[in-house]
Amino acid sequence: MRKLHVYDTISLDGYFTDATNDMSWAHRRDPEWNQYVAGNASGDGALLFGRVTYDQMAAFWPTPQAAQMMPEVAAGMNRMPKYVVSRTMQKASWQNTTLVKGDLATEIGKLKAQDGPDLTILGSGNLISQLTELRLIDSYQLVLSPTILGKGRTLFQTVGERRTMTLTKSKTFSNGNVVLWYEPA
Amino acid sequence: MRKLHVYDTISLDGYFTDATNDMSWAHRRDPEWNQYVAGNASGDGALLFGRVTYDQMAAFWPTPQAAQMMPEVAAGMNRMPKYVVSRTMQKASWQNTTLVKGDLATEIGKLKAQDGPDLTILGSGNLISQLTELRLIDSYQLVLSPTILGKGRTLFQTVGERRTMTLTKSKTFSNGNVVLWYEPA
Repeated sequence: MRKLHVYDTISLDGYFTDATNDMSWAHRRDPEWNQYVAGNASGDGALLFGRVTYDQMAAFWPTPQAAQMMPEVAAGMNRMPKYVVSRTMQKASWQNTTLVKGDLATEIGKLKAQDGPDLTILGSGNLISQLTELRLIDSYQLVLSPTILGKGRTLFQTVGERRTMTLTKSKTFSNGNVVLWYEPA
Repeated sequence: MRKLHVYDTISLDGYFTDATNDMSWAHRRDPEWNQYVAGNASGDGALLFGRVTYDQMAAFWPTPQAAQMMPEVAAGMNRMPKYVVSRTMQKASWQNTTLVKGDLATEIGKLKAQDGPDLTILGSGNLISQLTELRLIDSYQLVLSPTILGKGRTLFQTVGERRTMTLTKSKTFSNGNVVLWYEPA
């Protein structure tokens, strides 16, 4: 059984995107942070996306601009096996992508039961919210950015019942980011 | 010039109250946390509230139940000088309260210029959001609770422009709370 992880940056008002679906505010450029992010992207994991985030990432990471701005991260993003959950998508254009259709709980259950590297969800608030409700996520790595957005979308907007998580680790960076690791209680 | 501070507990989805204005999920009872909260309430500060939070607190802290459940905190809350911002309130019933009316920026500016202990805002999301926009808050002490609420209100819902803050300190507790100190950048 492989694990399903979440990695997302959230603002001080709890949003992973602003009101226009922009996630660029989450990127920092200082050397300490660059090294941390590059280390995350250098592993042999697999990635899972909702459709909106997939389309945004597929439009960026394969480009020469991405390779120039963040070479290690871009190489990792393009290389890693990717899964996208969508009812409407016909074909996934980004290399190494498998399209996931059908009942969400069943399909994600099957994916976790397959042999292979652990899965990490990036972005994808709707998907994270649904999978949190289904209790299918094994850990959440949240980067708390020292940013106020005012408006945006949370990772948990369809969660109907209060949940308490267990904090397993935390790490503070000099740019003001705090990385927090949680598991469902 | 006295300083204006914020102290609030927020959920992992950024909310300081749930959809029903309930803040009770933020209270933890373990000895380590009790000691931390009692230490906060033992100082000689003054408190500033919006009307909604004031009414909730005024209905709880003067009661025998509050004195029994959290004696040090209740004594501190009742003893400290309190200010409540409201356009509609005629008279503030809780002991040691001054009613603040009129233009918000002017009145809070006057309050900060008076001699006296530093001011701390508790709860009061609408007030915090407005005072953040007016750049009148000097520091934010946010307790990040390991809780998902699903729906609720943020501290910054009227902030129209992205803000970055400076993280000055952080402290992790065994109950999973992470206390974060920020100042406007």
